[in-house]
Amino acid sequence: MDGKHPKLQPKTPVPSDIEVSQDIVNEVGLLPIEDVAREAGLLPEEVIPWGIAKAKIHLKTTLDRLSDQPDGNYIVCTGINPTPLGEGKSTTTIGLAQALGAILGKKSFACIRQPSQGPTFGIKGGAAGGGYAQVVPMEEFNLHLTGDIHAITAANNLLAAAIDTRMFHEDSQSDEALYKRLCLANGKPFNAIMKKRLAKLGIDTNKSPEDLTAEERSKFARVDFDKSTITWQRVLDTCDRHLRGVTVGCGSKETIQLRGTVKGETPREQHSRETGFDITVASEIMAVLALTKDLPDLREKLGSMVVGYSKSAEPITADDLGCGGALTVLMKDALLPTMMQTVERTPVMVHAGPFANIAIGNSSIVADRLALKLAGEDGYVVTEAGFGADIGMEKFFNIKCRESGLKPKCAVIVATVRALKMHGGGPPVSAGKPLAKEYTEENIPLVVEGCANLCKHIENAKKFGVQVVVAINQFKSDTAVEMEAIRKASMDAGAYDAVVSNHWAEGGKGAEALGRAVIAACEAGKSEDFRYLYDLELPIRSKIEIISKEIYGADGVDFSETAEQQMAKYETSGFGKLPICIAKTQYSFSCDAAAKGVPTGFRISVREIRSCVGAGFLYPICGDIMTIPGLPTRPGFYDVDIDTETGAVIGLF
Amino acid sequence: MDGKHPKLQPKTPVPSDIEVSQDIVNEVGLLPIEDVAREAGLLPEEVIPWGIAKAKIHLKTTLDRLSDQPDGNYIVCTGINPTPLGEGKSTTTIGLAQALGAILGKKSFACIRQPSQGPTFGIKGGAAGGGYAQVVPMEEFNLHLTGDIHAITAANNLLAAAIDTRMFHEDSQSDEALYKRLCLANGKPFNAIMKKRLAKLGIDTNKSPEDLTAEERSKFARVDFDKSTITWQRVLDTCDRHLRGVTVGCGSKETIQLRGTVKGETPREQHSRETGFDITVASEIMAVLALTKDLPDLREKLGSMVVGYSKSAEPITADDLGCGGALTVLMKDALLPTMMQTVERTPVMVHAGPFANIAIGNSSIVADRLALKLAGEDGYVVTEAGFGADIGMEKFFNIKCRESGLKPKCAVIVATVRALKMHGGGPPVSAGKPLAKEYTEENIPLVVEGCANLCKHIENAKKFGVQVVVAINQFKSDTAVEMEAIRKASMDAGAYDAVVSNHWAEGGKGAEALGRAVIAACEAGKSEDFRYLYDLELPIRSKIEIISKEIYGADGVDFSETAEQQMAKYETSGFGKLPICIAKTQYSFSCDAAAKGVPTGFRISVREIRSCVGAGFLYPICGDIMTIPGLPTRPGFYDVDIDTETGAVIGLF
Repeated sequence: MDGKHPKLQPKTPVPSDIEVSQDIVNEVGLLPIEDVAREAGLLPEEVIPWGIAKAKIHLKTTLDRLSDQPDGNYIVCTGINPTPLGEGKSTTTIGLAQALGAILGKKSFACIRQPSQGPTFGIKGGAAGGGYAQVVPMEEFNLHLTGDIHAITAANNLLAAAIDTRMFHEDSQSDEALYKRLCLANGKPFNAIMKKRLAKLGIDTNKSPEDLTAEERSKFARVDFDKSTITWQRVLDTCDRHLRGVTVGCGSKETIQLRGTVKGETPREQHSRETGFDITVASEIMAVLALTKDLPDLREKLGSMVVGYSKSAEPITADDLGCGGALTVLMKDALLPTMMQTVERTPVMVHAGPFANIAIGNSSIVADRLALKLAGEDGYVVTEAGFGADIGMEKFFNIKCRESGLKPKCAVIVATVRALKMHGGGPPVSAGKPLAKEYTEENIPLVVEGCANLCKHIENAKKFGVQVVVAINQFKSDTAVEMEAIRKASMDAGAYDAVVSNHWAEGGKGAEALGRAVIAACEAGKSEDFRYLYDLELPIRSKIEIISKEIYGADGVDFSETAEQQMAKYETSGFGKLPICIAKTQYSFSCDAAAKGVPTGFRISVREIRSCVGAGFLYPICGDIMTIPGLPTRPGFYDVDIDTETGAVIGLF
Repeated sequence: MDGKHPKLQPKTPVPSDIEVSQDIVNEVGLLPIEDVAREAGLLPEEVIPWGIAKAKIHLKTTLDRLSDQPDGNYIVCTGINPTPLGEGKSTTTIGLAQALGAILGKKSFACIRQPSQGPTFGIKGGAAGGGYAQVVPMEEFNLHLTGDIHAITAANNLLAAAIDTRMFHEDSQSDEALYKRLCLANGKPFNAIMKKRLAKLGIDTNKSPEDLTAEERSKFARVDFDKSTITWQRVLDTCDRHLRGVTVGCGSKETIQLRGTVKGETPREQHSRETGFDITVASEIMAVLALTKDLPDLREKLGSMVVGYSKSAEPITADDLGCGGALTVLMKDALLPTMMQTVERTPVMVHAGPFANIAIGNSSIVADRLALKLAGEDGYVVTEAGFGADIGMEKFFNIKCRESGLKPKCAVIVATVRALKMHGGGPPVSAGKPLAKEYTEENIPLVVEGCANLCKHIENAKKFGVQVVVAINQFKSDTAVEMEAIRKASMDAGAYDAVVSNHWAEGGKGAEALGRAVIAACEAGKSEDFRYLYDLELPIRSKIEIISKEIYGADGVDFSETAEQQMAKYETSGFGKLPICIAKTQYSFSCDAAAKGVPTGFRISVREIRSCVGAGFLYPICGDIMTIPGLPTRPGFYDVDIDTETGAVIGLF
């Protein structure tokens, strides 16, 4: 970069995240986002400013312009199995990008996920990084951003309404009445979305609506849901446990005279159904956003999402309900990545935000691709994979990189003395409770014992053919001997390097050694060495077994009867070749959150296997996984307020 | 304006709304929104661009700068009781602003509501105006805009989650355990929001958390909901009839050991509850946005929203739950009005979007105020009041103008030959069905008969001391004799003027006569003549009776027992002095949608009276009013798609 990075002047002790962010904005000042974008190599017409601090980037025109540009060095930042306090993976992603850019003078980008607003107001913990390694202004990062998650909520729930309403109308109307309303009443020819369904049903797409036979009309108009197979849930980006299980359709107007029954003879029936809400980031549409390549692919993926099955076991898609076009229209702006900046003015791409325990846990392919093209051959793109390397990194390599074709060279694995002590047998660590003394005083044996967890992640990463650099994310109470123990264990396990990093307190300067190690690792690494862990052609069962054994260290996998049936159904429906996205706790290699270190002698239990046909993966549920969190007795929102004179946000982390 | 208005070249026949919009954008080009803002009198630092076509306007700095500027002429645009097809009220609002600006050379603004996305994908009908009197690009106007409605969804549902979660924790925890988690666990002093509750409870706010007595701790920690009184619903901006009535808390984790019961002896209880969703625009937070004055007032109003009552009948507010600050933080950007432009580059303020049948039906006070200051003494601000003048206009005068203190000079009442024929006894008009021949052929007797509806609205408007101009919104099939009949009836009823307007087909040029009439009416009108219909000091019952008799023409009002109890409770709780916002069908002066013309000999039935204490009104429910619409068998979304090559939206109206 061209010297526009102001010298960071960190305060000691480091203020709260929001104070650091507001200090930077008020005292140092943001670089107007158009300038950040220009320095990143974008042309003015490729940038859509969204206020002064955020911009959306035109995808197609920019990628078309840069199509001949070689990609930059692709680095994934991941971590060991974390404590509930988090081990600073986002912070390291951002601190490393700051070091590479502001300190080491490379063209450098951080690619991170948009945070869910649910946890923002629930259990404290930001996602903009922290201390002097964060994205600013953090309020704008954490709240609304450019509305992508809101767009997903809108799209997801339009499809949910379409499903319940379609069943309502199908349950009460004859085939002919349905067909008349759907295809004849407005006198228009079949549109593209209808022709897609006609083709799927084997009906001549050149026919006009009047020409269909009675049988064809029935087939077209009645998607005929088997209600027990509907997997599409509604979503909200709120921690609301009471929405986990809901009964909908309980209103006085949601009663119907069942089709084929006689008014007066048979009473009207309540058209209710048990279902539930997920948090928005768990929506399949979020996974689609993370994994899509471009607008045509977005349209295809959204239309192909399977929401349930018909009574004759045919998959029913969003396009069967006539909804794929509207979903794409709702998502067209969300497809464009958002650019922001770090405290050291490093460009940051923020795009998509799936959790790693219940989804793919990675930011978007399009943001990474854009950053890699902008970075160019000598540049660096640090992208973050959620939670521990057993889930986030595995999904990054096997799903995201497979879909994108992009080849990473280096994995940075973030470890902390605190988390390794926990893995070594230290007492439990929980949010909102004071840390036990094991964590605040030197304790070499716990660290040494706990390094087994880190070493297993290093070995796992090496299976994919990438170089591994361990980032020891320094806390104030860590001692030199403790950190040296981690370094030694890492090198013994085959890491390319292992370095202490203090970006939280010092910004890019604190991650300079990490930056140099990553540059060296990328020089040592070869894109050609990158490989996937399993072949898509394998049976679903085998793919799940490979991940469980190779990555988690399980002895084997037990499938419930439901899961067995689902596998059979998916193979029949042609979904057997999809990659696998396992939903599992982030706190352990196993499905038991309490099993720390490197558990052995355990098996993985697959309760059910959901499909995300549009996003392009199968989704085995292992263990007790919540898809919408709750709020604690004292939620984070209690501390959040606004200074009504200045408009400044107070108490957000 | 300074001649930057390109000459509009309307096509014949007028293309679809989206085609007109895309033509303007692609062929004529938008004026960059910064330029629209500059020409409107804003300084660059007062404008936050949101892409090229939209900007948010800094409220406080702009209003502070313009505080000495006299207000422009304030005009409300409303209509007769409409058909389900709408009579072109938004279109007239925009067309009139185009005429005043682009044709008559005045400084002119249109202030309109942001449309709900629900109907956008349900029953067709845009809200950006139509034909050559519309806001462009209409896709951006109709979809997401700048995220204000999404912010309301997020804020509303955070509060809903806070309510159910608080009950969950209160039902299972002792007072001491609750208090410990709320106030002691994190070792912090009471924050501002907690002190507000302490003060309300009469507890010394100088005490620290440890100092409270056991009794004070109980009072503080246990808000003690009477569940039957909770009026706060969740919201989504989707037409989803199955959410009208839902049971929440049905999940396997939402069971509790009731406080005071013994584990094992008493089984755990499912913590479920019957509730429902409204459409987002019906949220009280939307009403707050429409009626708030500035950021401190927003904070105050959001914190004061009453969500239910305690078992001892005390109102429980958002601030009692510790949530008012977080709500304000979520809404702080939504407080800033959004600026767009018409096809003739007239500046348009788009802000807030409550429906008029179930809410106040008016755009925001802050947008109107900003526009009035920017327009200045010789300028004109046309603001729209939803649906018919019996609800939208009455609420505009009695609630919105009373809250703002702004004084309108002129009311434009939009009438169509079609709707007047319906009021005169023509056959029913429904969306999606062909019009009967009465509506496509000349029929003077029906028009003459139907004018009674228009005349009653004219008389009603005059009760508020404003000049009335009737806009006869011309359709192709209208004949000169029909239109002259309307003009004559209007003048006989006391209108200042009544003119035919053809802005849909011709843009501002088509509304030139209307513009001249409005200018003359404003010159004839005096702000001092403006008056409210009722005094706030009157009992609730009397205020409802005055509106029902004076505006609707009812013989009287019948209150259900529930409504009687609610009135008593509100008077006791100190909410008796609030203005009245009646929820009622828009299709008739009465509560019977089928009663056309000027019904007589009817009474208004008040089923229940809700309170919007934060927004500042009471909300009697008259008749069968839906607070979240459903989708038809063939919803609008079926026709919406995207051209994946160009990114253009297809089929959105």
